[in-house]
Amino acid sequence: MYEGKTKIVEDLGDEVLLHFKDDITAGDGAKHDVLENKGSICAEVTARLMKMLSEKGVYNMFLEFVPPKKIRARKLKMLPLEVIVRFKKAGSFVRRYGGTEGEDLPQPLVEFTYKSDALHDPLMCVEHLEVLGITSREVAKKVMDEAVKTATILKEFFQGHGYELWDIKFEYGLDKDGNVCLGDEISPDTMRLRKSGEIFDKDVYRRDLGDPMERYKVVLELCRSISL
Amino acid sequence: MYEGKTKIVEDLGDEVLLHFKDDITAGDGAKHDVLENKGSICAEVTARLMKMLSEKGVYNMFLEFVPPKKIRARKLKMLPLEVIVRFKKAGSFVRRYGGTEGEDLPQPLVEFTYKSDALHDPLMCVEHLEVLGITSREVAKKVMDEAVKTATILKEFFQGHGYELWDIKFEYGLDKDGNVCLGDEISPDTMRLRKSGEIFDKDVYRRDLGDPMERYKVVLELCRSISL
Repeated sequence: MYEGKTKIVEDLGDEVLLHFKDDITAGDGAKHDVLENKGSICAEVTARLMKMLSEKGVYNMFLEFVPPKKIRARKLKMLPLEVIVRFKKAGSFVRRYGGTEGEDLPQPLVEFTYKSDALHDPLMCVEHLEVLGITSREVAKKVMDEAVKTATILKEFFQGHGYELWDIKFEYGLDKDGNVCLGDEISPDTMRLRKSGEIFDKDVYRRDLGDPMERYKVVLELCRSISL
Repeated sequence: MYEGKTKIVEDLGDEVLLHFKDDITAGDGAKHDVLENKGSICAEVTARLMKMLSEKGVYNMFLEFVPPKKIRARKLKMLPLEVIVRFKKAGSFVRRYGGTEGEDLPQPLVEFTYKSDALHDPLMCVEHLEVLGITSREVAKKVMDEAVKTATILKEFFQGHGYELWDIKFEYGLDKDGNVCLGDEISPDTMRLRKSGEIFDKDVYRRDLGDPMERYKVVLELCRSISL
């Protein structure tokens, strides 16, 4: 049993049960709230999107949605990394390199950040992962390829519903055979999703722009086009 | 004619004349002093080390030392990058990733930072260089290979004199034929050089540990073993 900021991971032996909590956090945990239905919305969005990804050949943790807020999943040895795919400039990219929120990148950019609130999730390049013993160059390259492929499928899915996926954060682990496997969560908590300037992601919470769950529910509704 | 924080670049047509100033700066230019002989020491150290590197097959800007504080050099189109090779953890590496100053890295690490005081020289990975149009993956890889090779030669040179090279910063440009060429400066300003815990580099200035030029002169003396 491991409890993170937004999920509890229950060890079932060969598998795990992920409990999605109603907690929402921002700014390395400095901002924190509990929002009704947040866990069930994010669990169901994750379940449906991962189901679609499986059908499109993206290997991921998803085994079964256990309503209202649990997912039965493959047991993974998680890499201590956030893997961000950016189609447009936003958030930490703009803070780091300048430019304008929403500006197009000429090709998808993959970034790794090291999961550490104490160090403020520092950017790492493939060379850092290798030298610090976090993962091999081969695994890092595989993760980058998978991340771009997966983000592109999700971008096209949302585009089909009239939404723009600006960026998305993935977390990967290794399964018992050492295969790279997408884990964690795919939800408005882990992406920037926009429609004609309107925000349908955690930036609603980060920037205090109203009730985030109103927007999260819209995302859930469009994900319900994917059958479970 | 271009004037930077520590050098003036005089355009001679096909070549340039680098004037090394007596200025020393730290903390994105927040700390600034003028130290007598600093320009001549750094110019001569750069000239002698680049001469040695040329003899060992490292393509670099050096053409001629013009005493006391100028270097005639190849004209390059500089990349807006600092290229750092680390043998041990120190400075911004420790601030970013933790660990202890002076701790060994298992293999040399190359980092790129984007030269921008306003953005505080942010770290960039090869992917950022490509996506932001700063340079191609091929040039970045060539720079990384050259940087490790060059830093290793310098490490061995200093080791032969009883000194430890912890890390070093290079700047590269492209010559008129598009070849990657080492430019800028190699001096106590651009490296961490230690001997039994004593500091022989700009950290003496950054940390207010006495007269930096006393230590810089020691480095110059040992570089005088290289004939010009």
